[in-house]
Amino acid sequence: MRQTQLFTKTSKDNPSDEVSKNAQLLIRAGYIHKEMAGVYSILPLGYRVMEKIIGIVKEEMNTIGGIQMKTSAIQSKEVWEKTNRWSDDIVDNWFKTTLKNGTEVGLSFTNEEAYSSIMKNFISSYKDLPQYPYDFKTIFRNETRSKSGIMRGREFYWKALYSFSADQEQHDTFYEKAKTAYSNVYKRVGLGDYTYMTFASGGTFSKYSHEFQTVSDAGEDLIYIDEAKGIAINKEVLTDDVLAELEINRDSLVEKKAIEVGNIFSLGFKFSEPFQLTYKTTEGTEVPVFMGSYGIGITRLMGTVVEVLSDEKGIVWPESIAPFKVHLLPLGDDITSMSFEEAKNLYIELTSKGIEVLWDDRINVMAGEKFADSDLIGIPHRVVVSARSLKDGKFVEYKKRNSSEAKIVSFEELIQMLTA
Amino acid sequence: MRQTQLFTKTSKDNPSDEVSKNAQLLIRAGYIHKEMAGVYSILPLGYRVMEKIIGIVKEEMNTIGGIQMKTSAIQSKEVWEKTNRWSDDIVDNWFKTTLKNGTEVGLSFTNEEAYSSIMKNFISSYKDLPQYPYDFKTIFRNETRSKSGIMRGREFYWKALYSFSADQEQHDTFYEKAKTAYSNVYKRVGLGDYTYMTFASGGTFSKYSHEFQTVSDAGEDLIYIDEAKGIAINKEVLTDDVLAELEINRDSLVEKKAIEVGNIFSLGFKFSEPFQLTYKTTEGTEVPVFMGSYGIGITRLMGTVVEVLSDEKGIVWPESIAPFKVHLLPLGDDITSMSFEEAKNLYIELTSKGIEVLWDDRINVMAGEKFADSDLIGIPHRVVVSARSLKDGKFVEYKKRNSSEAKIVSFEELIQMLTA
Repeated sequence: MRQTQLFTKTSKDNPSDEVSKNAQLLIRAGYIHKEMAGVYSILPLGYRVMEKIIGIVKEEMNTIGGIQMKTSAIQSKEVWEKTNRWSDDIVDNWFKTTLKNGTEVGLSFTNEEAYSSIMKNFISSYKDLPQYPYDFKTIFRNETRSKSGIMRGREFYWKALYSFSADQEQHDTFYEKAKTAYSNVYKRVGLGDYTYMTFASGGTFSKYSHEFQTVSDAGEDLIYIDEAKGIAINKEVLTDDVLAELEINRDSLVEKKAIEVGNIFSLGFKFSEPFQLTYKTTEGTEVPVFMGSYGIGITRLMGTVVEVLSDEKGIVWPESIAPFKVHLLPLGDDITSMSFEEAKNLYIELTSKGIEVLWDDRINVMAGEKFADSDLIGIPHRVVVSARSLKDGKFVEYKKRNSSEAKIVSFEELIQMLTA
Repeated sequence: MRQTQLFTKTSKDNPSDEVSKNAQLLIRAGYIHKEMAGVYSILPLGYRVMEKIIGIVKEEMNTIGGIQMKTSAIQSKEVWEKTNRWSDDIVDNWFKTTLKNGTEVGLSFTNEEAYSSIMKNFISSYKDLPQYPYDFKTIFRNETRSKSGIMRGREFYWKALYSFSADQEQHDTFYEKAKTAYSNVYKRVGLGDYTYMTFASGGTFSKYSHEFQTVSDAGEDLIYIDEAKGIAINKEVLTDDVLAELEINRDSLVEKKAIEVGNIFSLGFKFSEPFQLTYKTTEGTEVPVFMGSYGIGITRLMGTVVEVLSDEKGIVWPESIAPFKVHLLPLGDDITSMSFEEAKNLYIELTSKGIEVLWDDRINVMAGEKFADSDLIGIPHRVVVSARSLKDGKFVEYKKRNSSEAKIVSFEELIQMLTA
């Protein structure tokens, strides 16, 4: 894409009303627009990142048998009263509104009730199980404060999958697959080295739930890591009993701040019982469905990558979720210049090979400004075409965003490198 | 996909609380789930249709220069007060809710203000124009009644694009392109023969706006069609002056009920003025941006296809937006039967060639029930594998959903036909 087609612009100054690094950088680089605290619109650059994260999560969910759908945002009182989660005294972050006829309705803050209610129409026999429906959805939570940028929004985008299994054994098999799928997601978005699956408190039906926690000073949680064993524990389950069970020595634990980037949870019969979500077994008895829940905040994951991987110059996107693979910068103040012309040729050649290129085709913009913008935006491969690089022929200056070392390579070498 | 992986089931009876054909058929066939009047969750089959419609609209918008983003659902009072559209006395279908600190916020019922407010941060010079941002988004409208299924929801999914142009001339060029893109969308989703671009009332900045109206008895609008000229006029502009201008004879007009499936509108300075959305011309003067709006309801379009193209047996999807291309029905009551085994082989072969197949792998289901379900679900190509079709070798019975004629073809011929 030509950069002039992209309406957003970068800004040198941090927005005065943002304290989180992710919001500061994402706003400055033109990825998001703040509507109010905790509410952001996603601008074109940001949307490209979001789409790639969604694509990765979708692939991983489909691989383990997930089936995509789309639940409504508006939720009815009757459904949520079944589990006693309608009252504002019980759930303190509902957004509610009212139909013309006076009926009070809520906006989804989570999805267990919606799914339990829907699946009750379709599950009646052991033959109907297991099922793994999921959706990507805008979720609304009436947070008291919202200072963490897109990591904790009043409105945010997430993926939630719910598993409906015949029994604990069938559930456990899927739960293990979900662990792998989640680990794959964090690896694929570039957070593998920083993310631990942690033991967190479970519920009635399992001793533990599992969170995925990415180590970062911006985190709101504290986790305790045994690095040698690659195991981490959430604060709420850090007891002598748990340590003994996991064969961990308290002295070997390192406390770190971390961001919760996902969680998986065995729900058991907690929702199927109030919804009378039951099925007939092979023996003909009627028993409740065993449920599990599996969530990932898409916008939070995007914010976390910015918190963890950015440097003093700006964002550093992993190639897997970068808005473009290549940032192409012709230097020269004239559209008729040789560097502009050669950049255009290179742009056409690279895009024809399916490589996503952002071509900084702005004119009358100083080299320093182009470099600073490029670092801020954080596209993984920077290619500079200048009178200097062209003086001995068709050469460019190539640099990775996360490296300080630039090198001169020929057009041919560049294309080979980028398509390898 | 194996049909047993799809948790939804068909129902023989029309839901008692639905009067619209689209809701009745979509619920019976397992495409949608009703949460309350005007609020539906989209089930896996429905989501596949929606994704395809979204894909088509996205392609057409990108072709004319659109750039995708994602505006927030939660909207602030200050933004909408600029155009005097915050008050419930002016806009009577707002859904509003309240933040913890008492701040009242709204849920998007349309997007002009959101876009005007965002673009004001990025447009300052003629060099920044034109721009064509758009998004797909859940829209909330507090309708008094909602009896038209997914054609008029309290919550629905739409695409809205806004154009930001330097002047009327630049605007008009794009407006003509948008007309073509819109016509392409209706053709591609199978409504081309039933859909007219109609002259509707304009605003301050243009004599007409244009609606796209699909002829259907389920429509809420009346349009007047000159079939010879291929022109249609909305009721509100059916005056002698307009008829004279369009050189249409009143006697040649046929009145028909129609569903509004899209509209495009020249907004002029209506929004840019209150938002002070201006830019500096080449001469250095500051003038307002010329805007236009272009909307399509995705869920409404899906409902319209069902209204227009279904028959007494069920839904008839055009191939372009069908959830699957082929419905594969082995007959025989045993998983070890020859027809089940050969259907499996065919399923593997077809899917390996990239053909989307729904394989009815249910056992102990009578042939009649499989046929009835297949007609109700409406997949374009039906392939039956039975002891009868297999008696002379690898043959199937092939029938199009919209044809009554079935024929026996070999596996080979079938594959050739479907991949042609």
